Amino acid sequence: MALRHPKAEEIRLEDVLTALSNPTRLKVVRTLAEVGPTPCGSLLEGVPKSTLTHHWRVLREGGLIWQEAVGREYTLTLRRDDLERRFPGLLPSVLRAAGTR
Amino acid sequence: MALRHPKAEEIRLEDVLTALSNPTRLKVVRTLAEVGPTPCGSLLEGVPKSTLTHHWRVLREGGLIWQEAVGREYTLTLRRDDLERRFPGLLPSVLRAAGTR
Repeated sequence: MALRHPKAEEIRLEDVLTALSNPTRLKVVRTLAEVGPTPCGSLLEGVPKSTLTHHWRVLREGGLIWQEAVGREYTLTLRRDDLERRFPGLLPSVLRAAGTR
Repeated sequence: MALRHPKAEEIRLEDVLTALSNPTRLKVVRTLAEVGPTPCGSLLEGVPKSTLTHHWRVLREGGLIWQEAVGREYTLTLRRDDLERRFPGLLPSVLRAAGTR
């Protein structure tokens, strides 16, 4: 079953900000921005599966990431271009802010 | 009794993003950005007082606004310079994003 992802033009500002307002999710977004597409399993080790599932859903439904099955696992990819087109400069400014804490 | 406001250097990214992730609070921030300091009472007419109090607290404790008693009422002022120093470009990019919805 394919997971639900919003189209680029359906991405809502409040959902993007909500997704980024959680430090754990922001950490995932920063990692994806730095290293590119990453298998779910190698992000956030030691976090309970139900918590992970929740975070992936908030990020996916907010339009921040693609979550796609690759073999038996999901790979997460940051929707950098979609976000940039939808809300120019927003993601870079949040990533920069996160880097200066 | 003076209300609690974080110092500029104590403002946390997650609190700023949480404050901005609510459409009602974002609307208040946009108004303050456009018109400058504004009495509480003339923002968000028709919203229950307890809801207003909640929104002002989230904005104030997140470091987005000064909430200061002026006569018998509070005036809200956007902490634009503090936010810009703390997280350069973040607020302008969110305001721009909010304007393009």
